[in-house]
Amino acid sequence: MELYSDEYFMNEALKQAQIAFEEGEIPVGAVIVSKNRIIAKAYNQTEKLQDVTAHAEMIAITSAENTLGAKYLTDCRLYVTLEPCTMCGGALFWSQISQVFYGASDPKRGFRQTNPKILHPKTKISGGLLEQECGDLLLRFFEKLRK
Amino acid sequence: MELYSDEYFMNEALKQAQIAFEEGEIPVGAVIVSKNRIIAKAYNQTEKLQDVTAHAEMIAITSAENTLGAKYLTDCRLYVTLEPCTMCGGALFWSQISQVFYGASDPKRGFRQTNPKILHPKTKISGGLLEQECGDLLLRFFEKLRK
Repeated sequence: MELYSDEYFMNEALKQAQIAFEEGEIPVGAVIVSKNRIIAKAYNQTEKLQDVTAHAEMIAITSAENTLGAKYLTDCRLYVTLEPCTMCGGALFWSQISQVFYGASDPKRGFRQTNPKILHPKTKISGGLLEQECGDLLLRFFEKLRK
Repeated sequence: MELYSDEYFMNEALKQAQIAFEEGEIPVGAVIVSKNRIIAKAYNQTEKLQDVTAHAEMIAITSAENTLGAKYLTDCRLYVTLEPCTMCGGALFWSQISQVFYGASDPKRGFRQTNPKILHPKTKISGGLLEQECGDLLLRFFEKLRK
């Protein structure tokens, strides 16, 4: 079995963010991986659904849990293009996910602003994976909005 | 039009919590009120759905936003039998809900443990409404679990 790299999975999350971008949503994408396989893909849909809870991470968590038929993601990794917010950090806590990789930092609404200890003690966290690509997509979105 | 009291609405949230109790879920219930009318009712369904995001408040927020066709709950009040967790506090932040009433405190997982400033600055928060009744139902649930 070919082992995919963290960059590979973050690129898959970026593809999800690109879909969000094209649909006029703040471009954030996420994938959840179990045993080297993507078990959930999602992108931010807060505008389309008019639902503040429809962040990429939240949809991906629910989807991964449905796929596994289990409510814990102890053997899973999340790749998300933007640092999770407090809500998503709280959801990740409950899921006991094993690892979180994010791309761009969110100095305004990222969970680390609220309390960096929101995540489960078992969860490893790594920021800055494909940070430039993830951040550029967000910048392009907000520049377009301003025009 | 008859104006209902806060106790009336919290009792409606308690009825939702009772349904959760009967279904073997941690008994937490919530209602969201707009213009003196209940626009969403929900109870915790994390076990049934095997979904850590399926807290009463999360389901109620999504449901209320669907009812209103809008993603902000600036003119709404939430009544929930237990102090919201960090995830739900984060979702309430995004919703800009005007007021939150909760019953029992959650000294372990309540949002105030993470950071009492999670909620939106516009959101008023009141704890301890029908605290005894809300707390007793939780106590009964955990006593039954231990047997």
